[in-house]
Amino acid sequence: MELNPKPASRSRTLMTQLIFPLDTNPHHTMFGGKLMEYMDKVAAIAAMRHARGQVVTASTDSLDFLAPIRVGEVIEVEAFVTWTNRSSMEIYVSVESENLFTGDRQKTVTAFFTFVALDERGKPVAVPPVVPETEEEIKLHASAPERHRLRMKRKQDRRSD
Amino acid sequence: MELNPKPASRSRTLMTQLIFPLDTNPHHTMFGGKLMEYMDKVAAIAAMRHARGQVVTASTDSLDFLAPIRVGEVIEVEAFVTWTNRSSMEIYVSVESENLFTGDRQKTVTAFFTFVALDERGKPVAVPPVVPETEEEIKLHASAPERHRLRMKRKQDRRSD
Amino acid sequence: MELNPKPASRSRTLMTQLIFPLDTNPHHTMFGGKLMEYMDKVAAIAAMRHARGQVVTASTDSLDFLAPIRVGEVIEVEAFVTWTNRSSMEIYVSVESENLFTGDRQKTVTAFFTFVALDERGKPVAVPPVVPETEEEIKLHASAPERHRLRMKRKQDRRSD
Amino acid sequence: MELNPKPASRSRTLMTQLIFPLDTNPHHTMFGGKLMEYMDKVAAIAAMRHARGQVVTASTDSLDFLAPIRVGEVIEVEAFVTWTNRSSMEIYVSVESENLFTGDRQKTVTAFFTFVALDERGKPVAVPPVVPETEEEIKLHASAPERHRLRMKRKQDRRSD
Amino acid sequence: MELNPKPASRSRTLMTQLIFPLDTNPHHTMFGGKLMEYMDKVAAIAAMRHARGQVVTASTDSLDFLAPIRVGEVIEVEAFVTWTNRSSMEIYVSVESENLFTGDRQKTVTAFFTFVALDERGKPVAVPPVVPETEEEIKLHASAPERHRLRMKRKQDRRSD
Amino acid sequence: MELNPKPASRSRTLMTQLIFPLDTNPHHTMFGGKLMEYMDKVAAIAAMRHARGQVVTASTDSLDFLAPIRVGEVIEVEAFVTWTNRSSMEIYVSVESENLFTGDRQKTVTAFFTFVALDERGKPVAVPPVVPETEEEIKLHASAPERHRLRMKRKQDRRSD
Repeated sequence: MELNPKPASRSRTLMTQLIFPLDTNPHHTMFGGKLMEYMDKVAAIAAMRHARGQVVTASTDSLDFLAPIRVGEVIEVEAFVTWTNRSSMEIYVSVESENLFTGDRQKTVTAFFTFVALDERGKPVAVPPVVPETEEEIKLHASAPERHRLRMKRKQDRRSD
Repeated sequence: MELNPKPASRSRTLMTQLIFPLDTNPHHTMFGGKLMEYMDKVAAIAAMRHARGQVVTASTDSLDFLAPIRVGEVIEVEAFVTWTNRSSMEIYVSVESENLFTGDRQKTVTAFFTFVALDERGKPVAVPPVVPETEEEIKLHASAPERHRLRMKRKQDRRSD
Repeated sequence: MELNPKPASRSRTLMTQLIFPLDTNPHHTMFGGKLMEYMDKVAAIAAMRHARGQVVTASTDSLDFLAPIRVGEVIEVEAFVTWTNRSSMEIYVSVESENLFTGDRQKTVTAFFTFVALDERGKPVAVPPVVPETEEEIKLHASAPERHRLRMKRKQDRRSD
Repeated sequence: MELNPKPASRSRTLMTQLIFPLDTNPHHTMFGGKLMEYMDKVAAIAAMRHARGQVVTASTDSLDFLAPIRVGEVIEVEAFVTWTNRSSMEIYVSVESENLFTGDRQKTVTAFFTFVALDERGKPVAVPPVVPETEEEIKLHASAPERHRLRMKRKQDRRSD
Repeated sequence: MELNPKPASRSRTLMTQLIFPLDTNPHHTMFGGKLMEYMDKVAAIAAMRHARGQVVTASTDSLDFLAPIRVGEVIEVEAFVTWTNRSSMEIYVSVESENLFTGDRQKTVTAFFTFVALDERGKPVAVPPVVPETEEEIKLHASAPERHRLRMKRKQDRRSD
Repeated sequence: MELNPKPASRSRTLMTQLIFPLDTNPHHTMFGGKLMEYMDKVAAIAAMRHARGQVVTASTDSLDFLAPIRVGEVIEVEAFVTWTNRSSMEIYVSVESENLFTGDRQKTVTAFFTFVALDERGKPVAVPPVVPETEEEIKLHASAPERHRLRMKRKQDRRSD
């Protein structure tokens, strides 16, 4: 097992994608669900790079789609591990879109996913702590325990419904 | 335009899907992102059935994946409009998985999506109010304004980051 | 093994799908083959829900496409088991399309598929009888033996070609 | 318009495909629906090569799946126009599978599809007659009017249901 | 093992495909990468038909796209084994496109792929020699050793970079 | 039009992808053709970022697959523009694979693609020159005219076949 602390940069993952008509509605705007699928994939790679093993999506926090993405635009989906708690990892995912004709870029959506690391039998297994280095990494690492607390509360509220 | 109140049942949409290896990781567990894509699709159909026009995903609230879905299982994704506010609709989406060999079913995830109705030029356009009828519809309709308030606050908090 | 008679309702399966440009020809009309694929999938889930085991498509009766389906429309594919004969099941599949802007619906195609239930080694295995309950189920159950007889004759005719 | 008689060979279309896990059930057997999709595609190309214009699937006669197709096998789907009647074309489609390790081949399924030729506004338009040349083409051309008669009767029976 | 010389015709493989919007850029021209994927698939089937076992792509020579392929056109991708060298096979792949409305055909691209045959443990394994029969097969068989020599030189040059 | 010289870094594009069973043969090794498709996509984005307009694949030089890529591994496909010549751009594409369990990385394949920039009517249009900055960019920029010369000779040789 590999439990020495790891820099957040070691899990950073970038996926650039051209948006195809296949991914869009009749207004040529990308489906929110397709974007969520890309975000989950990039987040999963970041989590596997940190845990060096299998992982499974445990939750996503709320997502706000700030701007439509259109056919022929490019998106950059980036993810890294911000914080860990035993077998669980919080991943920050941000999406920027780029108009290929003008080069204009805009932030489309950001979100926090949580993943759980699994051993070969599919049981949760501990992961190394994260060492944040950049200003963004340090800020998100510091605010992670509070987000974790809200998620735990949210789960409890659902259970008592 | 069609702005007479409509029963929630008019937007109810059900999609049954067999889970394929294509949709799963090497542990044969369904990717969270693929499930989000199905949820967004079913929610979009429910929103279009209510609005009778084009729609776009505006947000999703948090999602907790309660149980893994495996290859060869069936999922039932169901959605209906719970509440509206001018051009925006709140959609409740629930997913149940079914083991085809035993018939056992379990709740996998539930979530709230919001969609905005668009006119032909892609501008927001008002939608009819919803009339809840079943106990579940009435309960979710009553609690919707509070969820709406939290979403507005969430957006404001992000903006002031 | 589970061979107690089962109501037809226990196998009823509904899949709602939005039609994408991907599924259509340059006239924006859905390909017949794509629709057959959806019908076979829904029929297979219905058959597995009845047999509680693996199944394989054995035949389809003739299909007449009564009306074109266009991009942006929604289809509802529904299937249930009408009749069984040892390891084989007859499944009735019907497809309705819905114009999302007007809400107009029309019957697109109906068909009978037959599936065979398989055990773990891939050999045919007996399935429970069906108990029809609704008027439609009772009518289709009653007329099934005659369709079965025609299928047997059809197979024999081919063999003697 | 091009209405001079055309040899059946002018519409002959062959598609060889490797079967992927994506196309199969957990028993590694190809889904009937996926095979129908391939058959419809090849038949559509044959019909367009004969009509030199857009076409739409009108019907399929019954299909019997004679042998399972497995992952890693290759299928050859072949189609040609056997007979025409104003704007409608009958297409014969046959599928053979080949085990790549042994070279053994077997007939999997054969079927008749009918397609209708369309003009630019999507209205039915006349197509050239077919000139059969090989023994198989001559035999299927000769028996086509009887199959056409049965299809007309079948449609009438459905209408009077 | 099957190492008797085999005619080139025994590996000939033809795949006809209709080009879909999915495969094209916003100018409705087919992506070069999608065409390469089809060429590799057809070449792989030809190689497996010759080797009667698993194969893996080792290299492609240069490709020049001579003419754009557009939505609604049909392509015919054809491949056969031209020459072998122990476990490796050279495959010639040619692509012709056909305008379905006029019947006009043009050569789009030709290329040489090399594949290596593998045994069950994934190790290279000898394949039978090829017997060229047609004029094209004889010409390509005769020029193959020179292309092989250039490929070996190319690999060496890269290694010494 | 935007014809001021641009740094090569402005076109750099990175796509990280998890390899799925869908993309692999029965030995769980990635298909060469699927990898070529990813390479062409990333190269096309790099070319569009340089040209700020539509582009089309003109050619690929030879590709040697140095190491197999397996299910569950991750690939990083990176591309940038190395050199331009009126409307044509040379793009260098490199692929590295990463074993997610060990973190081991290896170079899988490198290749040169050429793309042509197109105006709105699909005609070739001039692109800005490239300014190489890193050691790798400077080396590839310097050697580009010789590769261009070989490609021109290659085309001429084909034409005179």
